[in-house]
Amino acid sequence: MDVYSQIISLAKRRGIFHPSYEIYGGEAGFYDYGPLGALLRHNVQNLWRNFYVLGEQCLEISTPVIAPYEVLKASGHVDKFLDVVVTCRKCRSAFKAEELSEEQLQALECPSCRGPLEKGRMNLMFETEIGAVNRREAFLRPETAQGIFVNFPLLYQYARRKLPFGVVQVGRGFRNEVSPRQGLYRLREFSMAEAEIFFDPEDKTHPRFGEVAGDQVNVIPAGGEELRSSVGRLMEEGIINNQALAYYLALTQRFLLAAGIDPAKLRFRQHQREEMAHYARDCWDAEIHTALGWIECVGIADRTAYDLTAHMQATGADMTAFRAYGEPVKEKRRRIVPDMAKLGPAFKDRAKDIVEQLERMEPPPEESALQVTLEGERVMLDPEFFEVVEEEVTVTGKNVIPHVIEPSYGIDRIIYSILEHNYVEAEKEGERYVSLRLPPSIAPVTAGVFPLVSKDGLPQVALDLDRHLRERGIMTFYDEAGSIGRRYARMDEIGTPFCVTVDHTTLEDDTVTVRFRDTTEQVRVPRHRLAAWIDENIRPQ
Amino acid sequence: MDVYSQIISLAKRRGIFHPSYEIYGGEAGFYDYGPLGALLRHNVQNLWRNFYVLGEQCLEISTPVIAPYEVLKASGHVDKFLDVVVTCRKCRSAFKAEELSEEQLQALECPSCRGPLEKGRMNLMFETEIGAVNRREAFLRPETAQGIFVNFPLLYQYARRKLPFGVVQVGRGFRNEVSPRQGLYRLREFSMAEAEIFFDPEDKTHPRFGEVAGDQVNVIPAGGEELRSSVGRLMEEGIINNQALAYYLALTQRFLLAAGIDPAKLRFRQHQREEMAHYARDCWDAEIHTALGWIECVGIADRTAYDLTAHMQATGADMTAFRAYGEPVKEKRRRIVPDMAKLGPAFKDRAKDIVEQLERMEPPPEESALQVTLEGERVMLDPEFFEVVEEEVTVTGKNVIPHVIEPSYGIDRIIYSILEHNYVEAEKEGERYVSLRLPPSIAPVTAGVFPLVSKDGLPQVALDLDRHLRERGIMTFYDEAGSIGRRYARMDEIGTPFCVTVDHTTLEDDTVTVRFRDTTEQVRVPRHRLAAWIDENIRPQ
Repeated sequence: MDVYSQIISLAKRRGIFHPSYEIYGGEAGFYDYGPLGALLRHNVQNLWRNFYVLGEQCLEISTPVIAPYEVLKASGHVDKFLDVVVTCRKCRSAFKAEELSEEQLQALECPSCRGPLEKGRMNLMFETEIGAVNRREAFLRPETAQGIFVNFPLLYQYARRKLPFGVVQVGRGFRNEVSPRQGLYRLREFSMAEAEIFFDPEDKTHPRFGEVAGDQVNVIPAGGEELRSSVGRLMEEGIINNQALAYYLALTQRFLLAAGIDPAKLRFRQHQREEMAHYARDCWDAEIHTALGWIECVGIADRTAYDLTAHMQATGADMTAFRAYGEPVKEKRRRIVPDMAKLGPAFKDRAKDIVEQLERMEPPPEESALQVTLEGERVMLDPEFFEVVEEEVTVTGKNVIPHVIEPSYGIDRIIYSILEHNYVEAEKEGERYVSLRLPPSIAPVTAGVFPLVSKDGLPQVALDLDRHLRERGIMTFYDEAGSIGRRYARMDEIGTPFCVTVDHTTLEDDTVTVRFRDTTEQVRVPRHRLAAWIDENIRPQ
Repeated sequence: MDVYSQIISLAKRRGIFHPSYEIYGGEAGFYDYGPLGALLRHNVQNLWRNFYVLGEQCLEISTPVIAPYEVLKASGHVDKFLDVVVTCRKCRSAFKAEELSEEQLQALECPSCRGPLEKGRMNLMFETEIGAVNRREAFLRPETAQGIFVNFPLLYQYARRKLPFGVVQVGRGFRNEVSPRQGLYRLREFSMAEAEIFFDPEDKTHPRFGEVAGDQVNVIPAGGEELRSSVGRLMEEGIINNQALAYYLALTQRFLLAAGIDPAKLRFRQHQREEMAHYARDCWDAEIHTALGWIECVGIADRTAYDLTAHMQATGADMTAFRAYGEPVKEKRRRIVPDMAKLGPAFKDRAKDIVEQLERMEPPPEESALQVTLEGERVMLDPEFFEVVEEEVTVTGKNVIPHVIEPSYGIDRIIYSILEHNYVEAEKEGERYVSLRLPPSIAPVTAGVFPLVSKDGLPQVALDLDRHLRERGIMTFYDEAGSIGRRYARMDEIGTPFCVTVDHTTLEDDTVTVRFRDTTEQVRVPRHRLAAWIDENIRPQ
């Protein structure tokens, strides 16, 4: 069996992941995380939060997966989140156009039944309706990002009105894929972790860029060759456009390596202009090499002011941030001043309405009339009713629509890649022996807890220890079945970094044996120190 | 302002929660968790996992929110997850029948426009379709439980084929409510945490019942008066039907109290027969008293074998567990033995098919013919082709469909209740002073970090300390704006249990001041000990 099949088989046998709804024949594009997989995903997501929420001080929010039509119309997803789909008129098989070879497309013949093909465009969003009686069109979100953008005015307040600031969301996303593939690679419902970092459009420097400038990365610039260099150097050479993009590229690499990705199997590839999403001006994918080839696992995009502008236009909400000038500047401004002495007698009750409209208008260039609306009707207002004055005002800054740099992580693909990169197969006494060399902080189970033998009171001591570790927040697996070697093997196969054995010496000196997964080295640790010892040993270096 | 309005206002001002899609005019029944709310919900869910996953050793899994039609047809939700809805034919307003008064229903007049009403039944599930081309009907899950039930065969393996065992899921649920209410009370998309504990149908004792038997709870039995007693006593008196229900009732109370619910505002109410969900035989709700009245926050239901049986009937999958007898018993069994010497010559190639069919059949009562199917046609098989023998076999146990006890938690309602029960308003120097006295382990921010003044190098020391605490996994809030009193007030309002101040003494002896939220007492802690000190002080007692 190839490594891909080995991992799929291990994943199902040990409860990491498996196809959803199997007893109903399965549902393509949906996967369940089993007990160990759910723990692994928690740990990967928590590691991600350690980077983005604790480390980068991003604000994490959580918004609904159901999004009203208007929101995704404004964001461009209703009109542009499409796949070109080729359907067979005979057998109704459907394919993404990009999956068919040039010849198949030219021949217009279905690869499975040789029937005639027709091309079309399909929106990839799942549709639903809100309301049990008066129904309104809605979608399942294709990305978590829009839930962040529509909250910009509040988030800007929470961030104390200062750029740059970041907001993240970790949750489900949905794409009604035409042809979902096997495994965790192209799911219809998936887990994503997205960060939207709001920058001043004229200042995409990053305050902590210096900390990562020396990080070496593999990159493939659009239209160029793969090369390895530091992000600082790539910035200087103009290969990466700005510090913000470069910073998150380096941070993404740091996160992926901490999660157990092999650095030799990681590269950053810049999108060609034509493959970019409708909202992006520049985009770098973190690609990870696996048995399925190079897989796009993270997209780091410069979305510019695209989304905030779209929602501002659709709703009129203020999506700007205030850029303070270094020091206040004096500016000349023209302003309309209504002449109440004339408006009052002429318009009576409606004068107030006119004044409010005038105050919102741009001053006309010359002595010209202005159009106002009175009770639904347009009325031209002669220049005698107002004056245009020029004033000198002190201005402390101006409002700008922030630009967004977005690192967007596909959690499921990353999890599959972690498993593959840490899968080690060896032979032991003529049998296949599997270890998952996961970083201790993301391993689903932190400690196996065993009594050496199932007698002499050892099981009770081990059970008490197991409970004590769990009360301290440490995930354990208690096991007294089979030989100690067999129990080690079960833990090695799921990546448990430490196995703790209670033996007869424990009864004498209150120490336990701790065995390390990767070296099989053993040390004795005092029982009352064990929880703290484990905490220290799982912390990332 | 009443306490409800105070909390809604605080929640929005400080980023705990607010209505979704506000810039689009809002969408009833949907709420966003802001930066502090998302942290609070994480902490509440992690506390829940401490109880159920670490404490009870339940397996946590994660399954899709999209569920195929067949699954929810089998579970009864397509046919029975309905609300009686009253719609006005004139203004199209819709109401849940249970919300209208007897008079309004009798008069059949719309409460808002006096138009004529009509009654109907509406399914509460959100509908969608899977597949971009060949579309199949599906729903958004109304509960996470079904994702667990359909996985029973695998989960039983993961649990090493032993009853009882529990499986949990924490995630989104969806109900397309007719009339969602304000706030977190009746949402269309909500967070839930569900545990499905599989028991032998004839043994609903709980191995750890003794640990909770002394817990005092407030209960209202169906048709009875409210009373306070220990769960052990309530079991003895037959008020609670079995140990399993009683155990999870006590555990639910322990969790809610640890999360900060006021024990005087918590009661368990048994459902009347007619208010139970279609799958439940017995159900106790944990109700929490708030400004909105008594709110159902947790349902603890005995779902019996309802769901597993339904999915077994729909799919033919084996949803049984093996109950081993104390010791093997000898049983007499009748069995069909095909007579190959006669079947072979008579049926040739098709003999093998007949043998397979015979082996799956119940033996007929007497010497009678048996019906088999050959290439789609029914054929009667004379008794000469087989023999019915009676054998004595040793049987070690039998297969049973487990019963399910389900504690199901509504996370959003619990979070609102926690906020209200811990909201303390006082007056300080003539002004309203708000504290949220949240348990330290669930407070969104664990430590405020302040330099006493913004000079003399104190900000840099405080910033370094802030970063150090975050690297140790502690959520902090760094603040140097305004007086120290104002900064304490900002932290008290969001429930931060500790405020750490770096002052001039810090520069001399490397200690910092830690102030306790509830007592305002202050202690000095060595800076290098601070992370460990905080860990010790947030651990639940």
